[in-house]
Amino acid sequence: MQHEFFIPTHIYFGGGCLEKLGEIKLPGKKAMIVITPDAWIVDNGHLARLQRLLAKGGAESVVYNKVHPNPGKRQVEEAALLCRQENCDFVLGFGGGSSIDSAKSIALLAANGGDFWDYIATGSGAGKPIAQKPLPVIAVPTTAGTGTEADPWVVVTKEETNEKVGFGAPEMFPVVSFVDPELMVSVPPRLTAFQGFDALFHAMEGYIATVATPISDVFALRSISLLGQNLVRVVQNGADLQAREAVALASTCSGVVESLSNCTSNHSIAQAMGAYHDNLPHGAALLMIANEYFSSFVDVIPERYARMAQALTGDPTATADRLLPTLYEMEKACGVEALRMSDYGIGPEELEVFCTNALEIAGELFEIEPRPITRERVMEILQRSYR
Amino acid sequence: MQHEFFIPTHIYFGGGCLEKLGEIKLPGKKAMIVITPDAWIVDNGHLARLQRLLAKGGAESVVYNKVHPNPGKRQVEEAALLCRQENCDFVLGFGGGSSIDSAKSIALLAANGGDFWDYIATGSGAGKPIAQKPLPVIAVPTTAGTGTEADPWVVVTKEETNEKVGFGAPEMFPVVSFVDPELMVSVPPRLTAFQGFDALFHAMEGYIATVATPISDVFALRSISLLGQNLVRVVQNGADLQAREAVALASTCSGVVESLSNCTSNHSIAQAMGAYHDNLPHGAALLMIANEYFSSFVDVIPERYARMAQALTGDPTATADRLLPTLYEMEKACGVEALRMSDYGIGPEELEVFCTNALEIAGELFEIEPRPITRERVMEILQRSYR
Repeated sequence: MQHEFFIPTHIYFGGGCLEKLGEIKLPGKKAMIVITPDAWIVDNGHLARLQRLLAKGGAESVVYNKVHPNPGKRQVEEAALLCRQENCDFVLGFGGGSSIDSAKSIALLAANGGDFWDYIATGSGAGKPIAQKPLPVIAVPTTAGTGTEADPWVVVTKEETNEKVGFGAPEMFPVVSFVDPELMVSVPPRLTAFQGFDALFHAMEGYIATVATPISDVFALRSISLLGQNLVRVVQNGADLQAREAVALASTCSGVVESLSNCTSNHSIAQAMGAYHDNLPHGAALLMIANEYFSSFVDVIPERYARMAQALTGDPTATADRLLPTLYEMEKACGVEALRMSDYGIGPEELEVFCTNALEIAGELFEIEPRPITRERVMEILQRSYR
Repeated sequence: MQHEFFIPTHIYFGGGCLEKLGEIKLPGKKAMIVITPDAWIVDNGHLARLQRLLAKGGAESVVYNKVHPNPGKRQVEEAALLCRQENCDFVLGFGGGSSIDSAKSIALLAANGGDFWDYIATGSGAGKPIAQKPLPVIAVPTTAGTGTEADPWVVVTKEETNEKVGFGAPEMFPVVSFVDPELMVSVPPRLTAFQGFDALFHAMEGYIATVATPISDVFALRSISLLGQNLVRVVQNGADLQAREAVALASTCSGVVESLSNCTSNHSIAQAMGAYHDNLPHGAALLMIANEYFSSFVDVIPERYARMAQALTGDPTATADRLLPTLYEMEKACGVEALRMSDYGIGPEELEVFCTNALEIAGELFEIEPRPITRERVMEILQRSYR
């Protein structure tokens, strides 16, 4: 079997590791710091700290603080323009997936110019090759879920056409990431759960995908095991720094899985839901459909399900049929086992729209599953998951 | 706990993957191909194939074919000079650790000039900083053992002073490696065993080292498990391509362990033996002392020994005391359980010399062990291992 390993990002882990930002050789002299407008970033001193650490490394900085929860094409283009005008030579994303994905997108567009959708490879994107190397990106995640600190992917939305797409290229890995659990301590329980399950699904999807590799498998099982032991703990006590650290490591391991293997159509469907409902957190969308989705393959690849069950439970004798009940128990312990689409304003008449969108915008994820998921099965997953 | 992940090498795995060399974007226009003078490289068409694949990617090449089994300072300096004269802009190492370590050393010296020992950080080395980025290196291992395709290390010998040192810097990772088990099929059983146990000891040492990280642990256990299942198979039947592939993957995983964690004094001692006995294969030196060496810590870190035993046996209930007997059984099955130092011309009077050399040349590896290994204990290891 042929496969590849390529994770060029230098990743620092551990409580307080962000201080290393002031000690490393920075990839340039002027940074664009990319953040959301949330007041806590300024109020808690995070922005001043980033500026101080960059200055210590000899870099000045400008701030772009208009990132949305689901980063949009328009913001990316606005920020890339500012990045060029200000002659920034690298981009630092601080925050959740939205900030870091925006930083990666801005770095690409600032170096290459044009309309961001020129480069998008799916949907209405023009799939233009990336001619210029993107600006270097430093990633500082403050949530544990997306794995974007260890992958070349961004998820960006084109509002006009309801396209929420995943996109990436080998040049788009961050050059350096700081996975510092101290930055994650204040994430509230519900968001911690949404993000943690996102990380879990990255690992599980990457493990069942037909493009899984012997090395992605190792990271996937490690991530599943870390989350099985620590996610409930950290949702129940956000100040548990050891559990925060383990969940953060799991999220990064899952990012590696996304880089070496791939997400599957669980993500296509959840992203379709998010494309029409800006207020629906990505992890919540996944949780709404995951139990039904993962029931699709248990009889096709029972050994893989057994190994996931063993990792999740910590019991080396666990069999395939333990996986879904254990997942459900974890969801229950985190209080996210019965999320309702209707609570986010989703009506049953929208399910067909999600289905079409998932197949059109992220159809390639349907091609790497252990058993083909048909349009009928997507509808079944959505209908059985609808509450 | 703070730790880092950094493995920037793009690694291709699998039977036939070397063909990808003709498809990737090469890191330059003119390669120096670094090989040993062994006739099989030319006779079996390997050199012509490398030249053809490089030409396909638009690169011409010159050949340096004077690499020794234990690469020496003089050859590195001679080849680096040729590399500069020929204006090569990247270096391709094809062969065992000696060829690839030479390629990495040549790439450093061709870019920076001077005496190679200027840059060596230990022993009589001057420890000069690396001012210029080394030339890019492509690694094509034809043996499974050193892990050099996934680490920034070289082992080079200064003949005059009997210094066999490990040396490296983050800039010295290969940019691309091709781990193609088809290139390893003709390695004879005895060398396959020596190399495979080298890989196993990289994983075991990196797992017991106090600088082990949560990610190096994952790679170490995976490597130990792959070797436990496949090394005896491939020693007994070298044509078993599936087992070759698994052992090759293990070797690379162990290279990752060497990069993220470190070897321990098992390597210091074996390298001291090799420094005085050019004819002693590195893996054989390790095998001569390993059983005694690894008995040093079983009572200090029993959980880690148990986990290694579980990985090596495949039995999730194995306890710490299973590790050393299982290791010995594997050695026996491979016919390498009773290697004799005297067969390689080592006299008992040399043990003191090895001891001094190990502590002087690679003393830092004694500082990362679960229990301090004193000079007396090194002598004890050597004396009890002497046959």
